[in-house]
Amino acid sequence: MNTKFCSMERMEDKLKTFATYGDTGHGGVTRYSLSQEAIQAREEFTKRMEAIGAEITVDDMANMYATIPGSDPNAKRIVIASHVDSVKNGGNYDGILGVITAMEVLETIVVQKIPHKHPLTAMIWTNEEGSLYPPAMMSSGVICGKFDKDTILSSKSVLDRKTTFGEALVASGYAGSLSNRLNSNDYKCMLELHIEQGPILESANTDIGVVTCVLGMINYRIRTYGQADHAGTTPMKYRQDALYAAAQVLTYLHNELDKLDPDLVYTTGEIKCHPCIHTVIPDFVDFSIDSRHEDPKVLEQVLDIIKNMPKEVAKCKVDYTKAWARDTVYFDKELVAFVKASADEAGISNQYINSGAGHDAQYVSDMMPTTMIFVPSKDGHSHCEPEFTSVEQCTNGASVMLNTVLKIDAK
Amino acid sequence: MNTKFCSMERMEDKLKTFATYGDTGHGGVTRYSLSQEAIQAREEFTKRMEAIGAEITVDDMANMYATIPGSDPNAKRIVIASHVDSVKNGGNYDGILGVITAMEVLETIVVQKIPHKHPLTAMIWTNEEGSLYPPAMMSSGVICGKFDKDTILSSKSVLDRKTTFGEALVASGYAGSLSNRLNSNDYKCMLELHIEQGPILESANTDIGVVTCVLGMINYRIRTYGQADHAGTTPMKYRQDALYAAAQVLTYLHNELDKLDPDLVYTTGEIKCHPCIHTVIPDFVDFSIDSRHEDPKVLEQVLDIIKNMPKEVAKCKVDYTKAWARDTVYFDKELVAFVKASADEAGISNQYINSGAGHDAQYVSDMMPTTMIFVPSKDGHSHCEPEFTSVEQCTNGASVMLNTVLKIDAK
Repeated sequence: MNTKFCSMERMEDKLKTFATYGDTGHGGVTRYSLSQEAIQAREEFTKRMEAIGAEITVDDMANMYATIPGSDPNAKRIVIASHVDSVKNGGNYDGILGVITAMEVLETIVVQKIPHKHPLTAMIWTNEEGSLYPPAMMSSGVICGKFDKDTILSSKSVLDRKTTFGEALVASGYAGSLSNRLNSNDYKCMLELHIEQGPILESANTDIGVVTCVLGMINYRIRTYGQADHAGTTPMKYRQDALYAAAQVLTYLHNELDKLDPDLVYTTGEIKCHPCIHTVIPDFVDFSIDSRHEDPKVLEQVLDIIKNMPKEVAKCKVDYTKAWARDTVYFDKELVAFVKASADEAGISNQYINSGAGHDAQYVSDMMPTTMIFVPSKDGHSHCEPEFTSVEQCTNGASVMLNTVLKIDAK
Repeated sequence: MNTKFCSMERMEDKLKTFATYGDTGHGGVTRYSLSQEAIQAREEFTKRMEAIGAEITVDDMANMYATIPGSDPNAKRIVIASHVDSVKNGGNYDGILGVITAMEVLETIVVQKIPHKHPLTAMIWTNEEGSLYPPAMMSSGVICGKFDKDTILSSKSVLDRKTTFGEALVASGYAGSLSNRLNSNDYKCMLELHIEQGPILESANTDIGVVTCVLGMINYRIRTYGQADHAGTTPMKYRQDALYAAAQVLTYLHNELDKLDPDLVYTTGEIKCHPCIHTVIPDFVDFSIDSRHEDPKVLEQVLDIIKNMPKEVAKCKVDYTKAWARDTVYFDKELVAFVKASADEAGISNQYINSGAGHDAQYVSDMMPTTMIFVPSKDGHSHCEPEFTSVEQCTNGASVMLNTVLKIDAK
């Protein structure tokens, strides 16, 4: 099969255009799902997709589908999807690059008149980030049966703590029909391109990450219990300082976890201290530990370390509680192989990689064959304004996506 | 001089009565300054003081003075003062016990018809805690020239972030005359009884703390600077984790400070972590260090340790900034000796002690001779509902105050 290539000029045009919707004025965007800025991005998507003859449909969770027909009237659709919403002061690549790639693949096929049997769909997932209305991956969660829709509709804005996601959905004008939902009868498979959000591809000087799985993870809370007393009047020997104890426990966990598999990642990212007043000895500290690895046996070792922590540190009781866990989600082997072959045939450097972050694709993979393509993140940054992937790297990603779609189509 | 004693029955009655103003229903009070609950306490104070013939005046900061005349028309007033406001969910002793003691001393003198030359004043300081309108020791700060009055009047409620202290002052009906302020022409000296707020007296089984000084203190902020990256996608070797670094620095400081004088107290009570999300490696942590000791040389050693911290820990930059400092405030030696002699003569166990906490008395000591008397705090607790001092201990404190006043009067 002849390798096809997407257009760097068109990719650059789309990147620049979408960067204006929610532009913060210093290199990034704030584009909460269903906000005015996100609606501008949806309108741009509609305009550009209708211009190449795509039909637009919207489902009940405001997910948007732009579909061009294939030559076989009975063939299922191949869908390429990602999201247009961002975190607060996010960058110009996370999510939006996957939607731009989906659009570019369809545009290239139409412009170059590339024959294909299957209808092809470029798709926008609603509220992947969950920045304004938690949780993240909200709509794929509903459609793939992970979340209860009514619960999700009642999710409240983290800003005003009043408006519900359901109200925002109606107000947006993008509440469509349940019958338009992604489903395995009408859709053959889903593909998602995303920035890596880590430094691995850049460090290896590799342009494409052939994603094999989304890492399993465990998330625990560690708690220390002290005694609140006055900073000025309590001699040191009488103190039970929960923050001092937490510092010891945090260090202990880091030291122990560093002895495990070098591919393990773990993060103590959130800490709450009570009462958190400079003149009061803390009586309670709670910090998070998030740990991810492909192999559940390694996560078991992490859990053993948590369970075997000292039960008392610096005269403070220590305990833990499970927040949540997920198993490793493996992507479809045939699709993974198509991505690898597409990159190899196009002469684009590539390597296998796993996803440490969660994506809509991980929920969809329970419903139909699914996989992902990663492109490099400069300095590994994501969810921040310095996010950067060069236009050339973005276009390489789109070209690998294009050829992957054509391989699936030709199968 | 014959030792006089206060009444345990009257003390118990007052403790029980004042505990009803702002009663939380589980052993403590929330009685913010100038709140309805604090006004109830002020009305009770007025009622009881007028009943013994005291004249009530109020100054422009709502400080209240209840004065009974002495036999010498030219003698200055001796003032016994504390506060009726509490922290949120505070106890029934911090502040209010000092006001109750002032009332009891005057009542005992009136009831027992004890001759005295000087007019005697029981006083309420407004907003010592600064719980609703910061800062703490607000009114003594204004009257003793530590704070600018206009700045203080514009202090906003920490609850609604709108109402100013100045508005609350007018609304309370307790905005009196500037000419009524405590001053060194009309007042001879000030005495304050307070709970210790620490475990020293209880541990030593001593009933009275003869306070010699308020400890000098330094307050610094320690900061660590990392790089915010995704918890799932950033291999451990690339990380700059500001919270992990902060845990190391906090431990380092504790270890080094523990080598200094055993009377040093230091507290790392407040910590801020950014962005404080369980899935993001922290890029910035800021924690407080508060350190107190009578000897400025020891505080210099603390400062040396802070200044000589490692400048980089776990690949994160570390720095510090001064929040504030105060020198040790020594109380009037003659008054301290009167307190000691009064306790000794009454046969009440006592020991010298310093105050690690701040009190209105420390500001007043710049204006006139001042000292304090401490009574034990059960388990060292304060600023919480379990605060406790037995009625007997409270009455012992009031008796020592009474005899101290009589010694000053007789001088």
